[in-house]
Amino acid sequence: MMSGKGRLLGLGVGPGDPELITVKALRLLRGAPVVAYFVAKAKASKGQGGNAFGIVAEHLDEAQLRMPLVYPVTTEKLAPPLSYEDVIADFYDTAAELVAAHLDAGRDVAVICEGDPFFYGSYMYLHDRLAGRYQAEVVPGVCSMLGAAAVMGAPLVYRNQSLSVLSGVLSEDELHERLARAEAAVVMKLGRNFDKVRRVLERLGMAERALYIERATMEQQRIVPLDAVEPMASPYFSLILIPGERWRG
Amino acid sequence: MMSGKGRLLGLGVGPGDPELITVKALRLLRGAPVVAYFVAKAKASKGQGGNAFGIVAEHLDEAQLRMPLVYPVTTEKLAPPLSYEDVIADFYDTAAELVAAHLDAGRDVAVICEGDPFFYGSYMYLHDRLAGRYQAEVVPGVCSMLGAAAVMGAPLVYRNQSLSVLSGVLSEDELHERLARAEAAVVMKLGRNFDKVRRVLERLGMAERALYIERATMEQQRIVPLDAVEPMASPYFSLILIPGERWRG
Repeated sequence: MMSGKGRLLGLGVGPGDPELITVKALRLLRGAPVVAYFVAKAKASKGQGGNAFGIVAEHLDEAQLRMPLVYPVTTEKLAPPLSYEDVIADFYDTAAELVAAHLDAGRDVAVICEGDPFFYGSYMYLHDRLAGRYQAEVVPGVCSMLGAAAVMGAPLVYRNQSLSVLSGVLSEDELHERLARAEAAVVMKLGRNFDKVRRVLERLGMAERALYIERATMEQQRIVPLDAVEPMASPYFSLILIPGERWRG
Repeated sequence: MMSGKGRLLGLGVGPGDPELITVKALRLLRGAPVVAYFVAKAKASKGQGGNAFGIVAEHLDEAQLRMPLVYPVTTEKLAPPLSYEDVIADFYDTAAELVAAHLDAGRDVAVICEGDPFFYGSYMYLHDRLAGRYQAEVVPGVCSMLGAAAVMGAPLVYRNQSLSVLSGVLSEDELHERLARAEAAVVMKLGRNFDKVRRVLERLGMAERALYIERATMEQQRIVPLDAVEPMASPYFSLILIPGERWRG
């Protein structure tokens, strides 16, 4: 008997170490007939899954349908008249309809997300398009900044300290202003923005407190002193932690 | 044969739903001969464990030694000459030595932490005291703000938005200044600070975007419209989310 429409499941699978998935996400993942994941074009064309797919691959069953959602672009800088915003909005529209077709057929669709679904995750754009029409359940995950703090043995925020989470794409002035007021901070999305971020940290005298890590908790994890990072080689999945000042308490 | 000293394990057990523990934390928890947890005096005197203990209780075995670490005070306001800072620092010193005694005897000690160990967790104070002397391993967990965002179906930060995580104990001016610049924000540690925080949000015109939740993902979870919250009844484990502006992307 048909039980109506399927459920949309946004599953955080954690920062990279496959064991950092939650018991709940694992249970829902295993029970989902369709597993959708975002993947870059370059990887998809080589038949590879994305990061999130790699994290859960070992748990998937032959009978589960894999549904790659392939990003049409790999950079936010496109030649006019193309605009990243338009291209990506069209892509999410299409992806949402592909997922909706399964939901309409009564099949649950698990959309797997590296880290947490609502913390800079692409799942958000499907959620915004579909959660009004279908039952949606979101399972939170361990986000990359907390995975990074754990492996670096670096307590992030003490007691009543404030934490600023910033994107490396912010302008130099904006980064300067926000970091100058931060008691503890995380700068994500480094990649090509690394050099700019390091410059700001040096100017603010914060470089010595800053901890740099690539692909935290993944097999290819790499910890490098900030002043030894090769700017052009810093991957997108790198981040900088500026832990709060230690409290004796 | 003795294999030397035990390991200090800082295990994030997630925000409250027992299924939101990671596979890794669960594995290390089950293998630990000693399980330590922080607990308030009022609960301990009734023979109860703390929040973290309640989350994992079902997984513990008779043979595992339970080690409550009972906070000596329940408020940061003490009558002089007592100071919260001194009392709590002494407490962490003592707790660290109790844990160290097991480590010296070669027993691993799992310190369980609600949410994530390095995100406002009491484990941090043991880690700072012991990680230089013993092998320490920290397993990150799902933090309460991401648990809250998930159950409220509220994407927290889009694309390149910055996130400010603030403590409700900040002064009204400080809260005002920091919230005014925030693209997305989380205010934690509400409790007696609730009324002050709501006042600031109203003054900034942010109250309508704000989502209030108590004990996110726990059995006693409660979601209340911000203007309907009874200020003096807001528990410590409540928080306010101010999600970033939705991006069409």
